[in-house]
Amino acid sequence: MPLPRTQATFVSPIVESRRWVAGVDFPPERPLLNVSQAAPAEAPPHGLRQALADAALNDVNAHLYGPVLGNDPLRRALARQISGHYQADVRAEQVGITSGCNQAFAAAIAALCGEGDEVIIPVPWYFNHKMWLDMAGVTAVPLHAGDGMLPDLAAAEALITPRTRAIVLVTPNNPCGVEYPAGLVQAFFDLARARGIALIADETYRDFDSREGAPHGLFQLDGWDRTLIHLYSFSKAYRLTGHRVGAVAASPDRMFEMEKFLDTVTICPSQLGQAGALWGIENLQGWLAGERQEILDRRAAIEDGFPVLAGKGWKLLGCGAYFAYAEHPFDLPSEEIAKRLVAEASVLMLPGSMFMPADDPAGARQFRIAFANVDRTGIRTLFDRLAAFNP
Amino acid sequence: MPLPRTQATFVSPIVESRRWVAGVDFPPERPLLNVSQAAPAEAPPHGLRQALADAALNDVNAHLYGPVLGNDPLRRALARQISGHYQADVRAEQVGITSGCNQAFAAAIAALCGEGDEVIIPVPWYFNHKMWLDMAGVTAVPLHAGDGMLPDLAAAEALITPRTRAIVLVTPNNPCGVEYPAGLVQAFFDLARARGIALIADETYRDFDSREGAPHGLFQLDGWDRTLIHLYSFSKAYRLTGHRVGAVAASPDRMFEMEKFLDTVTICPSQLGQAGALWGIENLQGWLAGERQEILDRRAAIEDGFPVLAGKGWKLLGCGAYFAYAEHPFDLPSEEIAKRLVAEASVLMLPGSMFMPADDPAGARQFRIAFANVDRTGIRTLFDRLAAFNP
Repeated sequence: MPLPRTQATFVSPIVESRRWVAGVDFPPERPLLNVSQAAPAEAPPHGLRQALADAALNDVNAHLYGPVLGNDPLRRALARQISGHYQADVRAEQVGITSGCNQAFAAAIAALCGEGDEVIIPVPWYFNHKMWLDMAGVTAVPLHAGDGMLPDLAAAEALITPRTRAIVLVTPNNPCGVEYPAGLVQAFFDLARARGIALIADETYRDFDSREGAPHGLFQLDGWDRTLIHLYSFSKAYRLTGHRVGAVAASPDRMFEMEKFLDTVTICPSQLGQAGALWGIENLQGWLAGERQEILDRRAAIEDGFPVLAGKGWKLLGCGAYFAYAEHPFDLPSEEIAKRLVAEASVLMLPGSMFMPADDPAGARQFRIAFANVDRTGIRTLFDRLAAFNP
Repeated sequence: MPLPRTQATFVSPIVESRRWVAGVDFPPERPLLNVSQAAPAEAPPHGLRQALADAALNDVNAHLYGPVLGNDPLRRALARQISGHYQADVRAEQVGITSGCNQAFAAAIAALCGEGDEVIIPVPWYFNHKMWLDMAGVTAVPLHAGDGMLPDLAAAEALITPRTRAIVLVTPNNPCGVEYPAGLVQAFFDLARARGIALIADETYRDFDSREGAPHGLFQLDGWDRTLIHLYSFSKAYRLTGHRVGAVAASPDRMFEMEKFLDTVTICPSQLGQAGALWGIENLQGWLAGERQEILDRRAAIEDGFPVLAGKGWKLLGCGAYFAYAEHPFDLPSEEIAKRLVAEASVLMLPGSMFMPADDPAGARQFRIAFANVDRTGIRTLFDRLAAFNP
């Protein structure tokens, strides 16, 4: 007898780690530094909030069901934005809106895979990808990070079997922070196309890439949408996490299939979330450029400050977008250290073991630091606390 | 090789029927009468809209991720409301908030079933239930409606196998409109409990039941939550369809399992949707009572007006909540009639074939009329057009 779907996977690391801090009284002189979750902690700009308020008050459609794949104006605006950013010609019917980017991934998997199929995912993985594959009855085939925490093309090729339906890339990467070089992304696309499988590229953190312009040329390729399924989120760019609005770009044929899934699992994306995303695309590009500079500055603060930790034996394995990924020097598993850091240093960060199979020894030595919500002062405090920690 | 999940199911009838009317120019003297979808067509009351606007402008948490299972104040308020309505003692940890009621169903199935398991669903079915089971790799076992379009207990019992994980009831029923008697619901609960399976009761249309007070006594039973999984929607009660906010009541153990699914598929319900639902529970009970009276009046208009159709050979099989379910007198399949009604009568309603297996001959003879958005005048117009239709 098969297990129920949910018992085939683990508890979300975010949910589990919230339980570690629930009810804990942190000393007033050492409040909690939470670097566990990749999420803005502030409200969107006033103009966007006002746009939401106006829609709530005056637009009846803001309260009614909309199209399963999202409202046409938002689809058009996103298609234009992708076309601009990637210097390509993406059409509105190649773009769909979802209730967050996780849902875009789930829809893509539903359109690609049946029971027992395989999907190759980079390890360390984004845990919700792994969880969804587990619950979808799809085997997540781990592709271990190679040099510079980048996925290795030859290793991926060797993992392809007749059951493989897709390779997943996450760039800039969660949890490692690394930005995949354009040539590497292109090579993975070529491999997927040659083998007749999909390439799922999750670019949730696209807007915080340190490189100017298009991070790859895939959208410029003829027939890109027969191979590429591109995932995006409005949550980080415009601080809309609480509104659940993400997106997928793919072929109209695949959009037709994903529509069945999306209709059944949420019917349509939140109308106000879509109003916010549209307002953001149309009005917040200058503001977003500033946000990106701030994130890049925090990334620089991580790199500038890391020698304090390096002196204690820590290693910085990757850094970019919202994340640093680091190796600790202790003879204890990372999950035990993580719990002790809560109690002894008022720091919450997720152990590497939450981003890979339980039997992978690398997980016990690694940590993800989601630094986007911590300014330079906070990063210094974080490093001081970590440097002082000696279990 | 298995098909991808989405290819195991059909296109949503709502999506498909929208395609029938897309681009059609209806004559000015005979505009489209759309009785295809069970959804409010008007905005919520001003107070609720103002509450959403205030939250969007002033509450930072309205824009941030919240708990996967919903915000505590809403969970507590819903638990209190269920406790009041059903004269029971339901606790907040037995209640979770979802991104619409479809998602509550999907989460329940994920927590109950693995590949190849079976779930018994009443036929005519709610199509999104069938679609989700198809995409989840779960066999939907049809329980054909018996007398009065009610599910038959003995027939259900005979369908139970070692792979059965749940029986689904929808009351008031979609698409048939019938309100299941309390004794019947209780008998299904007893059957499920005795056989160690779950009873999923979808009460999306609870607030428009013609009976006063609790429609059944299940919540009063000791250990109800070991058997019952109760689904609810805020969409109809407070006109929040565009905000995607539904709910599930079940045991904390099952909530723990469903949380994994919900985290992965949407992370959390829309914050503004939750704000609207909470405001509605706290402020709109008198208004909702008026809404219910209006729906009951429209239901009476259906019953009062039906003789016009009965004279042409139509039969009313069920009526209640948002729906009438009727048999047509023609020698044509219902789907063909439905398409001709669009062209020849400017009426969009869903054929019975969309609510049952393709090989079920009953579907070809039946229609669902979702009348909630049509007032008495509209219902008269609808019946006049149907009475004049003679293919």
